[in-house]
Amino acid sequence: MESEKIIIDEGKFIPHLSVDCVIFGFHGEQLKVLLPKVKSLDLWSLPGGYVMKDEDIEAAAQRILEERTGVTDIYLEQFYIFGKANRSTGETLKKVLLANNFAIDEKSWVFERFVSVGYYALVDFSKVNTKIGIYDEVCEWHDIHQLPDLAFDHAEITLKALETLRFMLDDKLIGLNLLPDTFTMKELQILYETILDKPLRRDNFQRKILSMGILERVEKKFTGAAHKAPYLYKFIK
Amino acid sequence: MESEKIIIDEGKFIPHLSVDCVIFGFHGEQLKVLLPKVKSLDLWSLPGGYVMKDEDIEAAAQRILEERTGVTDIYLEQFYIFGKANRSTGETLKKVLLANNFAIDEKSWVFERFVSVGYYALVDFSKVNTKIGIYDEVCEWHDIHQLPDLAFDHAEITLKALETLRFMLDDKLIGLNLLPDTFTMKELQILYETILDKPLRRDNFQRKILSMGILERVEKKFTGAAHKAPYLYKFIK
Repeated sequence: MESEKIIIDEGKFIPHLSVDCVIFGFHGEQLKVLLPKVKSLDLWSLPGGYVMKDEDIEAAAQRILEERTGVTDIYLEQFYIFGKANRSTGETLKKVLLANNFAIDEKSWVFERFVSVGYYALVDFSKVNTKIGIYDEVCEWHDIHQLPDLAFDHAEITLKALETLRFMLDDKLIGLNLLPDTFTMKELQILYETILDKPLRRDNFQRKILSMGILERVEKKFTGAAHKAPYLYKFIK
Repeated sequence: MESEKIIIDEGKFIPHLSVDCVIFGFHGEQLKVLLPKVKSLDLWSLPGGYVMKDEDIEAAAQRILEERTGVTDIYLEQFYIFGKANRSTGETLKKVLLANNFAIDEKSWVFERFVSVGYYALVDFSKVNTKIGIYDEVCEWHDIHQLPDLAFDHAEITLKALETLRFMLDDKLIGLNLLPDTFTMKELQILYETILDKPLRRDNFQRKILSMGILERVEKKFTGAAHKAPYLYKFIK
């Protein structure tokens, strides 16, 4: 049985431009990245797509992320544009479209050179419910140290996002976006150690974080054993 | 007399994509930006242009900068992509092309929406010899506090470049690119104060800079009055 072809209306999009998203989550003392796997192919990639002609790039990133992963309404920040002329070829994309029964002219810009805008996001792992898009078979979290082979230059894009995350960690305390609403000092330190991939001294870490004046200690509730429980903190918005 | 039209071969370029460069220099205790002024119009803009279909974006930025300003071989770094759908209209560009006797189809993508990649550079003012491109009447340095009205959203792009420069100043000491090969501690402090637009405490500043271990003191030459001259420093490469 031959199923019907799905027509891609390439005229809707800005040619030669794409968006790729690196979504970080933190769970079980691992920094994780959310990756869809393309249907019928053993091909993992960052969630990505095209920008419509009348669409802000940031809105495109939000839309693509929702379509490919089910994740909505999260803070995304662009971190780099990947603009080398030889960074992608059309071969992989041809396989993807063929495997998914898409119809598109072989001479389309879709198979030519792409400039890609990289976005990263930090999400509270516990609040994310993923679903899958029309291209994809699954959408799963992967430990940053055990990523599958990624299509195109998506391994390089992921690494650049990680470097940006590390660089920004001190200045903006953006790492807090990866934690639940309340957390212990130890959990925060483990998060930092995981992202930076190195141990930190507990006393230095605690002094530095508290001196920033952005954490508030949550009052302990009386439980009868409260004196043994560690303090919980929350972010002062 | 009607002069011959100049034909723009728009097919050479990636549609809807441009590059804009913010070139910072430092002179006379002012932070300056290098701006070309379009021929026959009272229109200042950042030096910018299109990306060829087989060209790395970074190579395009270097080429555009040389064509528009004569500046070659400088360190450029991308800092943001400006991707709002309504950020530019074709009206201003039509005026520019008309005033310069260019011939181009009115329905070209050139007059539609553009995504622009912003690059900034820090140059040693004393080493820059500007020349002008075919579009331009002059190319001049302007004090960041007294910029002329800029076309399109180029004032916003310039501000974002300045914010990036301020943010990066401590981490990368990139400000040293704005100084000659040797400089006094006072000159370095004035540079920082100018960029950050606030006074700094001399003792704190000196201690912090020297603790980074990236400056080397140049031996004084015997001049008979050497004890009065301040020490010169240079960057340890």
